[in-house]
Amino acid sequence: MSTEMSTMLRRLIESRSTILAAGAHNGISAKLVERNRFDAIWASSFEISTSFAVPDASILTMSELLETARVMAEVVGIPIIADCDTGFGDAANVYHMAHRYSAAGIAAVCIEDKRFPKTNSFVDGCSELVSPGNFAAKIESAVRGRGDSELLIFARTEALVVGCGLDEALARAHAYADAGADVLLIHSKRRDPEEVLEFGRRWQRRTPLACIPTSYYGITREEIQAAGIQVVIFANHAMRSAVRAMDRTLARIISACSSSEVEGQIASMKELFELQGMDDLVGHFR
Amino acid sequence: MSTEMSTMLRRLIESRSTILAAGAHNGISAKLVERNRFDAIWASSFEISTSFAVPDASILTMSELLETARVMAEVVGIPIIADCDTGFGDAANVYHMAHRYSAAGIAAVCIEDKRFPKTNSFVDGCSELVSPGNFAAKIESAVRGRGDSELLIFARTEALVVGCGLDEALARAHAYADAGADVLLIHSKRRDPEEVLEFGRRWQRRTPLACIPTSYYGITREEIQAAGIQVVIFANHAMRSAVRAMDRTLARIISACSSSEVEGQIASMKELFELQGMDDLVGHFR
Amino acid sequence: MSTEMSTMLRRLIESRSTILAAGAHNGISAKLVERNRFDAIWASSFEISTSFAVPDASILTMSELLETARVMAEVVGIPIIADCDTGFGDAANVYHMAHRYSAAGIAAVCIEDKRFPKTNSFVDGCSELVSPGNFAAKIESAVRGRGDSELLIFARTEALVVGCGLDEALARAHAYADAGADVLLIHSKRRDPEEVLEFGRRWQRRTPLACIPTSYYGITREEIQAAGIQVVIFANHAMRSAVRAMDRTLARIISACSSSEVEGQIASMKELFELQGMDDLVGHFR
Amino acid sequence: MSTEMSTMLRRLIESRSTILAAGAHNGISAKLVERNRFDAIWASSFEISTSFAVPDASILTMSELLETARVMAEVVGIPIIADCDTGFGDAANVYHMAHRYSAAGIAAVCIEDKRFPKTNSFVDGCSELVSPGNFAAKIESAVRGRGDSELLIFARTEALVVGCGLDEALARAHAYADAGADVLLIHSKRRDPEEVLEFGRRWQRRTPLACIPTSYYGITREEIQAAGIQVVIFANHAMRSAVRAMDRTLARIISACSSSEVEGQIASMKELFELQGMDDLVGHFR
Repeated sequence: MSTEMSTMLRRLIESRSTILAAGAHNGISAKLVERNRFDAIWASSFEISTSFAVPDASILTMSELLETARVMAEVVGIPIIADCDTGFGDAANVYHMAHRYSAAGIAAVCIEDKRFPKTNSFVDGCSELVSPGNFAAKIESAVRGRGDSELLIFARTEALVVGCGLDEALARAHAYADAGADVLLIHSKRRDPEEVLEFGRRWQRRTPLACIPTSYYGITREEIQAAGIQVVIFANHAMRSAVRAMDRTLARIISACSSSEVEGQIASMKELFELQGMDDLVGHFR
Repeated sequence: MSTEMSTMLRRLIESRSTILAAGAHNGISAKLVERNRFDAIWASSFEISTSFAVPDASILTMSELLETARVMAEVVGIPIIADCDTGFGDAANVYHMAHRYSAAGIAAVCIEDKRFPKTNSFVDGCSELVSPGNFAAKIESAVRGRGDSELLIFARTEALVVGCGLDEALARAHAYADAGADVLLIHSKRRDPEEVLEFGRRWQRRTPLACIPTSYYGITREEIQAAGIQVVIFANHAMRSAVRAMDRTLARIISACSSSEVEGQIASMKELFELQGMDDLVGHFR
Repeated sequence: MSTEMSTMLRRLIESRSTILAAGAHNGISAKLVERNRFDAIWASSFEISTSFAVPDASILTMSELLETARVMAEVVGIPIIADCDTGFGDAANVYHMAHRYSAAGIAAVCIEDKRFPKTNSFVDGCSELVSPGNFAAKIESAVRGRGDSELLIFARTEALVVGCGLDEALARAHAYADAGADVLLIHSKRRDPEEVLEFGRRWQRRTPLACIPTSYYGITREEIQAAGIQVVIFANHAMRSAVRAMDRTLARIISACSSSEVEGQIASMKELFELQGMDDLVGHFR
Repeated sequence: MSTEMSTMLRRLIESRSTILAAGAHNGISAKLVERNRFDAIWASSFEISTSFAVPDASILTMSELLETARVMAEVVGIPIIADCDTGFGDAANVYHMAHRYSAAGIAAVCIEDKRFPKTNSFVDGCSELVSPGNFAAKIESAVRGRGDSELLIFARTEALVVGCGLDEALARAHAYADAGADVLLIHSKRRDPEEVLEFGRRWQRRTPLACIPTSYYGITREEIQAAGIQVVIFANHAMRSAVRAMDRTLARIISACSSSEVEGQIASMKELFELQGMDDLVGHFR
């Protein structure tokens, strides 16, 4: 399973100039990502933490994140990239993480160079990095932990997020690629994409680059391609739209004590049965 | 915990003419139901099945439904009514169910008189009822299983859904109230609310009534009150609005290869951090 | 994963005259089964139910049994045969079961022709069978549910257990083999093995046979081979010995208010660290 | 639930000179601890890690340890003291831990002053302590996290284990008691109990003491009482006896290809059905 989906993701990366992934937090959001023809699913720890209504700050454990990724893997046919935060501890934890995620049929794991327990990158002043050597050891540990599987390892540097600058970000990226990372994710929380684009222009190695244009959403496809960034992750929009929509729907229902007004704006029961696979079940079995 | 939330729900039912509940499928949707001032959360098996992207047809087990209800209970301060389908088997299963849900701090469980494995009531031609005696035995078993806790037991009859008519529905309702049901849920899948309203008018016992106005959404608060129905459950609208919103957002992102256009229509990162409780965490700990 | 372990089990069955499996209920018992050179692990619903201290009567759900099998699969290198009782409902449940167990890397699932919810076969007077056609449909459903994977499907008939006699048992076995069962498990609760042996002698098809010599423990390897039974499952002895040992140890400790007397008779901390893989972890990481 | 069992444990501690607890790792071992009349169950992270066959080194997450404690809580009527290692991260993690364990009906949590990720105390040279202030902050966080519940907080110092000496151990113990610890656990890995006894003699505060006589098993009840230690935890013997017994049973079965010889030495199926509660289920329901 893992190997199958990992292989699919490796081939996508080898054959396409741009890979688009979108964040999901459960089976249905993963299915919608697939139905909208994204190439891969980002099993976002921000989205999943939100779905549990707990802070995106290492409060959920690997168990809950893994189980959620597994639920997705059982219902979609595209690769899942699991956002694994810091790797849940030290290099020993990362070893077990890689073993368990590959056994679960997940295509890729992504770990970042923040200290455990982490705080979401968009919360100011809370993040601290581990040393490059320490993080490189985690990557090597993930490589060992995946064993024979093809599990991809995304290494994410937060050097720009914590304000260390481009040189440090590049130095770390080189160390992580040397340690065996399959993809390098360069993260930024600025409104303009310039530092990410500059990073891309200065990156000359074959290890592919990924980015998450949350704050610098004005970036264009052309800019991304010109900078040589191959994997683009829209990491949190499914959840952000779901929350807005649920909130409005609930507000309208309670104020009217009726769902009459919202009926036209929400998916029908029939549409949800289709997404569930109900017709198949009934047709074959009941 | 269970006793605390169960007591809160019992008091609400004793003191209010109308109780409004809304369906949820995870921690965040539960939190939004609470924030919008509903009285209680309906831990909907339809919504939860949708969230796993599997048919609402006894494919999820009690374990997954219970775990989801528990996640909700840990983050909200209003009662949860857990939609427990058929009780997951026979009376022995119901006994264990009541024991486990009360230990998890859930205020109420709702079981229905369909045969296990069930199919969602809005799927035509798939539902079959167990005998009234068989279902009354399940209710008695739930009463024993809750032990000293105050767990409420909602008994739901599908007699109208399968076309057995009002007399059968009323006869079953009497048997279920005799067996110890705390609330009687009368379900219907017709577009007009007439059979539900007539049921309400003919029900003369003190056991409160509940209804789920999904198909007969045109029903008014006044009609509900006039018919003596006290608990109104908007069972699936949160999920239906989330699916529609996520689908549209993902479609727009992939067609533009950019989230630029959707930014204004979705919740901000900041709003989601608030819902997660991130500020509290950062303020106290990091 | 599934395919890998399933293939290993298929090859074992093709190449060996006798396959020995033993029951387990968690990671460590599975590891001990492997260390003692059994060919496969029986993820026993009786043992697992005992480990949760609930009746072996469909009280645990598939979720808990699957999760336990997965824990085993992550720590051993031999195939796991998962005891899946009745398949957890009807043919639709069996379909999802086969899909999920194969995704979890389990080599084989075993379903039996008792009615859901089941009661353990060694409890008198509680078991009732579904019709042969109904059960054959479950097997076909498992075949479809496994998709491309090599997951083996064991079909277990309880015809002898409920007293239907050999002819009925054989008729059912033929129907199940026709439906696609990979292995036929003939169960019995008599003290003497005669009915099992006779079944074996009368079975002329290529579908291999399995048995569980719990009550007829006097049976010899020679008798088993002479009857053409290939897979022998010692289904519950690990748990039965663990319970006896823990009970005695605890009794001695409490009566002496000291563990001094039991020290010599129990495994050392060091031995348990080895089984945990602690040395590896410390050597590599800490 | 939590409050109920926490209150029971508080009363035991107030009314008895010695409280005896024993380690368990699943429902059945917990039930055997209860049946042998221990006062409380120690939900041992060493035993639970062993049951998963992974190192006792923060490889299991809180989710797995909590779920295991919950399984125990659902089947016994005595208090459970959950071994929570370091609290699974920093003070923010501890806050959530206390909230979730109290919601699960667990009587007490025990956290220790090792750095996360921890390694078992009996593994040489791997442990490092956090500062007393850092750990006191965790205790305060647990106090806040338990909210209105009566959850007890055990604070365990590893100062003797890492060789810091008695003075440091006592200084830490005072800081932890000041921070709100309900019970102080003094741990040691020496063969003789002298340092633990000396600690007890020098401890003059009302906060009760606990110890785990694994390595210094020669200690007597009289010595423990004379030193003023009130809670004695036999933390790992159930698992150690289970492993030894399962290993021997499996070895004998495979060498004989028969369970005939072991039948007399292991618990009967009937005894396990009793422990499962099967008679009750069958009597009432099937």
